[in-house]
Amino acid sequence: MTARPASVRIALIQERAANTQSEAIALLEKRVRTAAASGAQIICTQELFNTPYFCRTQDVRHFDLAEPVPGPTTDAVSRLAAELNVVLIVSLFEHRGPGVYHNTAAVIDADGRFLGKYRKMHIPQDPGFEEKFYFTPGDLGYPVWKTAYGCIGVLICWDQWFPEAARMLALAGAEILFCPTAIGWLADEKETEGATQHSAWEIVQRGHAVANGCYFAAVNRIGKEGNTEFWGQSFVADYHGRMLARASVDQSAVLTADCDLQALEQARRIWPFLRDRRIDSFDGLASRMIDDASAAPEES
Amino acid sequence: MTARPASVRIALIQERAANTQSEAIALLEKRVRTAAASGAQIICTQELFNTPYFCRTQDVRHFDLAEPVPGPTTDAVSRLAAELNVVLIVSLFEHRGPGVYHNTAAVIDADGRFLGKYRKMHIPQDPGFEEKFYFTPGDLGYPVWKTAYGCIGVLICWDQWFPEAARMLALAGAEILFCPTAIGWLADEKETEGATQHSAWEIVQRGHAVANGCYFAAVNRIGKEGNTEFWGQSFVADYHGRMLARASVDQSAVLTADCDLQALEQARRIWPFLRDRRIDSFDGLASRMIDDASAAPEES
Repeated sequence: MTARPASVRIALIQERAANTQSEAIALLEKRVRTAAASGAQIICTQELFNTPYFCRTQDVRHFDLAEPVPGPTTDAVSRLAAELNVVLIVSLFEHRGPGVYHNTAAVIDADGRFLGKYRKMHIPQDPGFEEKFYFTPGDLGYPVWKTAYGCIGVLICWDQWFPEAARMLALAGAEILFCPTAIGWLADEKETEGATQHSAWEIVQRGHAVANGCYFAAVNRIGKEGNTEFWGQSFVADYHGRMLARASVDQSAVLTADCDLQALEQARRIWPFLRDRRIDSFDGLASRMIDDASAAPEES
Repeated sequence: MTARPASVRIALIQERAANTQSEAIALLEKRVRTAAASGAQIICTQELFNTPYFCRTQDVRHFDLAEPVPGPTTDAVSRLAAELNVVLIVSLFEHRGPGVYHNTAAVIDADGRFLGKYRKMHIPQDPGFEEKFYFTPGDLGYPVWKTAYGCIGVLICWDQWFPEAARMLALAGAEILFCPTAIGWLADEKETEGATQHSAWEIVQRGHAVANGCYFAAVNRIGKEGNTEFWGQSFVADYHGRMLARASVDQSAVLTADCDLQALEQARRIWPFLRDRRIDSFDGLASRMIDDASAAPEES
């Protein structure tokens, strides 16, 4: 563990799907070099950066896209991290074994060391986002990593809607939460629901930033794939939910922002949410619902 | 329990501190009649509606403001509720016993029946908001009430920053969360911090609305008391975090909004966060922090 740095520059790589996995990796290398040249120290890809968003339909052939983690892609990424002295977070389709596949993010430290991985815990299933077909729910909990440039955690896409997931990372010490994602509009909903969907997505994640006193970095893809138009707009919000940087809806971007970890600690001193949590009262959070009996207040 | 209504009109009463408790109650009656006349079915006051925000300093004399709950104020409110056939939520300084005082909200059903009370669980303590001096932390958990017009829960002020509290209410069935509050700017911070403070406050609560698929209604006070300028801007956000209504920063208001509970259920069907919560992974939420050992991922 290194000393806690004062400030960290992060970069989010917002891209459209490449034609092949090798093209995606070549493009990643190019973008990472650009990011590093502009001073970025921790760099994160969008969700499933080296495949299309294949979950639009349920098709067993797509399992062929999965790869071991660590494996060839993380090996290549590790060499790049070590060369450029940057932390890299890469989101991959993990082949764990026959019939067991995960939506996984690998974290590589600035010396090229594979620090570990996070497996997406919350898996969606709705038309066009058929993920329960592909992804076994994660079984590694909510790890955090003390990287060369700060203590970080990772959520993946649907996880972003769950305050519990962000909280678990913050309680374990993460100060910057990265969230590779692949979210977009369905063609038949965009006009009526599109603005609301995007707004809700941004609000809930900025809310996590506020509630946890953390930086929150969401990395989305762009481009149309079938009926889905990924809405880009990757962003970084600070511990007060302020929007530090936001990418466009449809352009590739290497989005950078500076995360001031001293300011974060100062903010938590005067808004000490973690001091005041009523941990004696949260048992119900591990329940699906709280039934009438347990919800009834005792009278005094 | 009545059948689940399709839509509920709610009203939030945003006021400045009255000169006396009896003036506050007379003003409340006037505002409630206005709200009821415009069709409101559930009506909520700001925090500590019948006292000044006395927590600006630590002074034992202020404990004299406390009253039993139920007691004379809730008796008067019950008569009003029954007469107008409205649900009333009133925020009071509760005298429970010598040396034990709570920041409490009483809930009165539309037939005038005292349904129960919520005692503020999360108590702040910072300059100008010296609440740990006055308020014993709540010991009734997070009750919800199936009122004549819908299933509701109450949070009070500082609770609004804690995703766990909103979640507990949603899990217990609440579909509209009311949050009486007393938050404002300190004179020496407003210029530099004021916009950020207000924005963070709004974001985190709209985030609860999104994450829980609930309506969220925050009721703030207005006016200057000492160095504190309460920032008003009471609001109602829907289950997608959309702002349905927002009051001004410095004017009295009876803010109404319609909560469509059928639309709420439709929204939760396509964005089924409560379906997908990884309740097997949330044990750490009842911890103050999660230490290194328990945060380390198992490798597989």
